[in-house]
Amino acid sequence: MSLFVQKYGGTSVGTVERIEAVADKITKFKAEGHDMVIAVSAMSGETNRLLGLASSISDNPTPRELDVLVSTGEQVTIALLCMALHKRGVEARSYTGQQVKILTDSAHTKARIQDIDVSNMRADLSAGRVVVVAGFQGVDEDGNITTLGRGGSDTTGVALAAALKADECQIYTDVDGVYTTDPRVVSGARRLEKITFEEMLEMASQGSKVLQIRSVEFAGKYNVPLRVLSSFKDGPGTLISLEEDDASMEQVVVSGIAFNRDEAKVTVIGVPDTPGAAARILAPIGEANIEVDVIVQNISADNTTDLTFTVHRNDVEKAKAILKVVCDELGAKDIKSDAKIAKVSIVGVGMRSHAGVASTMFSALANENINIQMITTSEIKIAVIIEERYLELAVRSLHSAFGLDAQPQEEN
Amino acid sequence: MSLFVQKYGGTSVGTVERIEAVADKITKFKAEGHDMVIAVSAMSGETNRLLGLASSISDNPTPRELDVLVSTGEQVTIALLCMALHKRGVEARSYTGQQVKILTDSAHTKARIQDIDVSNMRADLSAGRVVVVAGFQGVDEDGNITTLGRGGSDTTGVALAAALKADECQIYTDVDGVYTTDPRVVSGARRLEKITFEEMLEMASQGSKVLQIRSVEFAGKYNVPLRVLSSFKDGPGTLISLEEDDASMEQVVVSGIAFNRDEAKVTVIGVPDTPGAAARILAPIGEANIEVDVIVQNISADNTTDLTFTVHRNDVEKAKAILKVVCDELGAKDIKSDAKIAKVSIVGVGMRSHAGVASTMFSALANENINIQMITTSEIKIAVIIEERYLELAVRSLHSAFGLDAQPQEEN
Repeated sequence: MSLFVQKYGGTSVGTVERIEAVADKITKFKAEGHDMVIAVSAMSGETNRLLGLASSISDNPTPRELDVLVSTGEQVTIALLCMALHKRGVEARSYTGQQVKILTDSAHTKARIQDIDVSNMRADLSAGRVVVVAGFQGVDEDGNITTLGRGGSDTTGVALAAALKADECQIYTDVDGVYTTDPRVVSGARRLEKITFEEMLEMASQGSKVLQIRSVEFAGKYNVPLRVLSSFKDGPGTLISLEEDDASMEQVVVSGIAFNRDEAKVTVIGVPDTPGAAARILAPIGEANIEVDVIVQNISADNTTDLTFTVHRNDVEKAKAILKVVCDELGAKDIKSDAKIAKVSIVGVGMRSHAGVASTMFSALANENINIQMITTSEIKIAVIIEERYLELAVRSLHSAFGLDAQPQEEN
Repeated sequence: MSLFVQKYGGTSVGTVERIEAVADKITKFKAEGHDMVIAVSAMSGETNRLLGLASSISDNPTPRELDVLVSTGEQVTIALLCMALHKRGVEARSYTGQQVKILTDSAHTKARIQDIDVSNMRADLSAGRVVVVAGFQGVDEDGNITTLGRGGSDTTGVALAAALKADECQIYTDVDGVYTTDPRVVSGARRLEKITFEEMLEMASQGSKVLQIRSVEFAGKYNVPLRVLSSFKDGPGTLISLEEDDASMEQVVVSGIAFNRDEAKVTVIGVPDTPGAAARILAPIGEANIEVDVIVQNISADNTTDLTFTVHRNDVEKAKAILKVVCDELGAKDIKSDAKIAKVSIVGVGMRSHAGVASTMFSALANENINIQMITTSEIKIAVIIEERYLELAVRSLHSAFGLDAQPQEEN
C-alpha cells in the first residue's frame, strides 16, 4: 500500500466522459489499497474561455482578479470528479488551493508555493477518503487567491507529493511517457523506462514539452519520484528520479534527442575587438527582457569580431532595433539575422563519464553534410544550431548514432 | 454620502456588455461620493450550465460538491466586474463568500447565514475601494463552501446591508419596481413608490415574483430599507421599508393585487361530521410534504361535511392517492379535484384600519358574475379562489375597484 499523488491535466478531464474515466482509474487504485491524492487542471478549453471573457473586458486585466477568475476552472473539475467518485461508492472530498491551504507568495498569475498545510488531507486519508485538490492555485497570507502560472498543475502535484512524502507523483497526460525523441520525427523513437531529473530538465529546456521545467526542478529538489503516464492508455510510463537510485542508467550515454525551431540567430558583424564590446551589445537585449540562448564569438583577421547569438523568433525584430542603436555607437559594420535555423540537443547523464560523445555527434552530422553553425554544451548536454531544413535528418541520424533506435529493455 | 449595498442579478450581468453597463452605473454612484458594496449573481445561464455538468455525471450529486461547483458562477462575475471597474479607474476588490467571510450553517445548497465578518469590507471602504462580493455563497465553520439556495443572491445583498448598517439595499433586476399588479394583465398597473415589508411578503407569497420571500423577511427583521430597481432603465424603483417610517402609506387601503394559477383544489365529499376527521385527512398530506394552502369546510345537512383544500397542481395526483386510503377508512363518499382554479389576493396594510374592504372586494367580483369558491384572509390580505377563466377579469375589476389605476403620485 502506497501513497500516490496523481495529477490529471486538462485533456484528461476535458469532458464529462473523460472525468468518468479518471474516476474509474482512481477507483481501481483505491481498491488496490493505495492512498490517493489527486490534483486536477481545468477542463481543456475552460481556462481559455475565462481568459477570453477577461480580455473582452480589459486589455490589461488586474492580475489579482485574473486569478479569482481562472481559478474557477479547476474548482469546477474537483467538484465534478468528486461527484463521479461518489457515484462509484468511493469517499472523496474536494479542496480548492485556499481550502488545503496551499500558501504562496503574492505574485499573482505566477505565484510560488511557500508551504502546504497537510493536516486536512492527512485526516481525510486516515478516514479512507480520496483527496481531490484544485491544481494551479493557492492563497497568499492575506487570503487572496493566487495562481501558479503556466504548467502550475504539475507543480501542484509535485508539491503535494513532497509535502505528503508520497511514494510517487504520477503525472497523467496525453502521451504515454518520455521518448528518446519526438516519434513524429523518428519512427524508431522509443519510450524511456527511466530518466534522471537532470536529463528531464535538459530535455524540457531543449524543447521536449512533456513536463513543465518548474515541476521537474521541484521534484528534483525534494527528491519526489515522478512518473509520466497516459490517461488514455495503460502502461508504466516513464519514471523520473535521482541518478543514484539506479545503476542501469550509467550504461546509457545519451538518453534523448531534443530539438526546437523557436529560435532565430542574430549576428553583429565587424564589432571592434575591444574589451567590453560583447557586454555593450548584450546588456540592452537583456534589459528589454529578451532571452538569449546560444552565444558564439569568432575572432577575424582585421581586429574586428563577429558576435552571434540566438533569441526567440518573436523577439528578432525587437532585438535588431535595439542593436541598431548600439552598433552605431560601437562602430560595428552590420547586423544580420536568420530565422531558418533549428537547435538539436543530445542529453544524457552518461556523457559525464564518456569521452568522445561530441565527436560522435559531430561526425554523425558531418556524414549527412549538415553544417554546424553554433555549438553550446553543458555537463549533460550538447546542443548545435543548424539550418532548419536539416532538422529531421539531423535528429534521425543522431538517434541512430547513439543507439536509441534499439528495442526498449524490459522494465527492471 | 451614503453607504449603498447593490445587488445585480443574473440577467443584469448576463453578458460582458451588461457587466460593463453595471460598472458604469457603479462608477456614477462612486463619483457622487457614495460608499459602494456590490453583491452579484452568476451570469445568466451559467448556474444551469454547471448544474447540467453535475447532472450528466450523477442523478444525485453530493450537496457539498454541488456547492463547490455552482459557487464558481458568482466568482467569475466578481472578477469580471472588478476588471471593468479598474478599467474605469475605480478601485475595487472582489471577495468570494469564503473570503468575506460569510459564515453559514452547513446545510449545503440551502445554507443560512449566521454571521458576516465586516472587517475586510470596512477596510476597503475606508481606502476608497468598491467592494464586490459573490452572492449566493458562504462558508461553514469547517471551511466548506456553502450556497444559500434559490434567490440566495438577494439574501446576500440584504445580509451585507444589515451587517454593514447600509443606508439602503438596492436590488437591481429586470423589472423597474413592484407593481400594483402584473402589467401584462392590467395595462393600468402602476409602479408603487413605496410598500411595506409585510405587504411585500404577502405579494411575494401570493405569486408576485419580484423578490424572494426570504430576502424580504431578512430585510424586515433587520429593518434594512430595500429598493427594487431596473438594471436597464433609470428610475427610482420601489422602496420597501417599515410602515412606521411613512405616514403617506396609511392613506392607501389596498397596495396591490397578486394572483397565481399554480394551485388545484381537492374536495373530500361526505366526510362523517366527527371530531378529528379534518386532521385525519390532512395529516398524511402534510407527512408526504405536500403543502396545503387554503382550507375550507362546509357543514352539510346529513351529518356529513365536505372538506376542500388547495395544493400545488403538481401534487394533485399524489394527494388523491393518499386521500383514497384515508377516505376508505373514514367512510367518506368521494374525492373530487379541479385544477382549473386561480387565486386572487388583495394586499395592503391599510385594510387593518379600514372596514368594508372585504365587501368591496366581493361586490366587485359579484358585479362581474364571478363566483367565489373559497376565501382565506390574513390581517393585511384577502385571497379568493375562483374559476381560472375569470382570473384576468377579476384582477382588472379589483385593480379598478380599489383605485389602483390612478396615476402614481410624485415621489416625496
